[in-house]
Amino acid sequence: MTPIYDGKAKTLFAGPHPHTVIVAFKDTATAGNAQKRATFPHKGTLCNAISCKLFELLAAHGLPSHYIRKLSDQSFLAHQVQIIPLEVVVRNRATGSITKRLGIPRGQPFQPPLLEFFYKSDPLGDPLLCESHIFALGLATQNELREIQEQALQANKTLREYFAELRIDLIDMKFEFGKTPNGQILLADEISPDTLRLWDAQTKESLDKDIFREEKGDLVTAYREVARRMGLV
Amino acid sequence: MTPIYDGKAKTLFAGPHPHTVIVAFKDTATAGNAQKRATFPHKGTLCNAISCKLFELLAAHGLPSHYIRKLSDQSFLAHQVQIIPLEVVVRNRATGSITKRLGIPRGQPFQPPLLEFFYKSDPLGDPLLCESHIFALGLATQNELREIQEQALQANKTLREYFAELRIDLIDMKFEFGKTPNGQILLADEISPDTLRLWDAQTKESLDKDIFREEKGDLVTAYREVARRMGLV
Repeated sequence: MTPIYDGKAKTLFAGPHPHTVIVAFKDTATAGNAQKRATFPHKGTLCNAISCKLFELLAAHGLPSHYIRKLSDQSFLAHQVQIIPLEVVVRNRATGSITKRLGIPRGQPFQPPLLEFFYKSDPLGDPLLCESHIFALGLATQNELREIQEQALQANKTLREYFAELRIDLIDMKFEFGKTPNGQILLADEISPDTLRLWDAQTKESLDKDIFREEKGDLVTAYREVARRMGLV
Repeated sequence: MTPIYDGKAKTLFAGPHPHTVIVAFKDTATAGNAQKRATFPHKGTLCNAISCKLFELLAAHGLPSHYIRKLSDQSFLAHQVQIIPLEVVVRNRATGSITKRLGIPRGQPFQPPLLEFFYKSDPLGDPLLCESHIFALGLATQNELREIQEQALQANKTLREYFAELRIDLIDMKFEFGKTPNGQILLADEISPDTLRLWDAQTKESLDKDIFREEKGDLVTAYREVARRMGLV
């Protein structure tokens, strides 16, 4: 099969039916605008299993997404969407870039959760966007942005409650959204420890890609621990 | 007199009445987070004359500010306010930082004008803030921010129309706002070619501090040309 899109951590292939795609996970991890890169056997399988389960969880809570069904250990079937070039970040606690950017102490809670948009643009380095920038750049309409915000906050709420039961603190997350041919906004991409920041509720240790970003342990062991608590391995 | 605040381009002294201050202009220009600095004789007098006239213009159009009256060639009397640590930027056309940050071509118009907030923080390098950050940092309430936005856009409209009559294109501007002891939000700081970007409508040449930032001519000659068209010299 010829890929229709070859990304950093996933490859997209044309699906078996019109307007569907196959999302296939790689074992690659990248960080720092892809300047850091490595391969971790089993990472793709773990991210796929976790993503499928979390998309199913959201659907069960009334939030549809591009996800249709799991296809194999490394892939799932999805509706084809046109990705809106925004990284939609929801933060329950401060960590990562925002602590340096705004001088907010690591771990400080945001109540309500803080929602941020970044422009998906490698040459520009994914700059922060306010709503006015999104409209000026023509990236989304007011209604589309409202829809994106509501879905992102609803997904955060559902995921946060779910992980709390697994003694995991959902710190922040990055969502991407896409548009179907008839204009529907759907949660897209993946939902995995690559896109969620997860801290063990007790030890506060990272169970996510920060292990790779900050070189603080074995990434696959942590991803497997998340999958274990989710009943997947 | 002992200064109560010594800034980059102005010094504040206690005023003759309670809750008033004297705003005295210096001949200093700074740029790039004050890493670049120089002195230009007559700059203070020109910025003071232009600021006083523009605050009076805004008042005549129903927009009050901290300005009370001109005191001398280099100073004006103002209401004492607590400055809200936000740089409020209104852009009619793209130039400066936004062209690099978002890849928007220089000179591209924003319709409606684009409003941006930056955190007045030298150690953090004045980072961009969205509304959600302003609330999370507790810098302003929703009502205060609404008031700031309305006043900034109204000031832009009045100033833009005024400069258009002088064959000057108002490209963008930086406002600061303050709070009186009874909670009123007032436009503060100065309004001069240090805080406005002004292009000659015909030649598109800068008549503002970009001359100093980009070393493209004589700053005082340009500021005097603005004052001349305003009927001040």
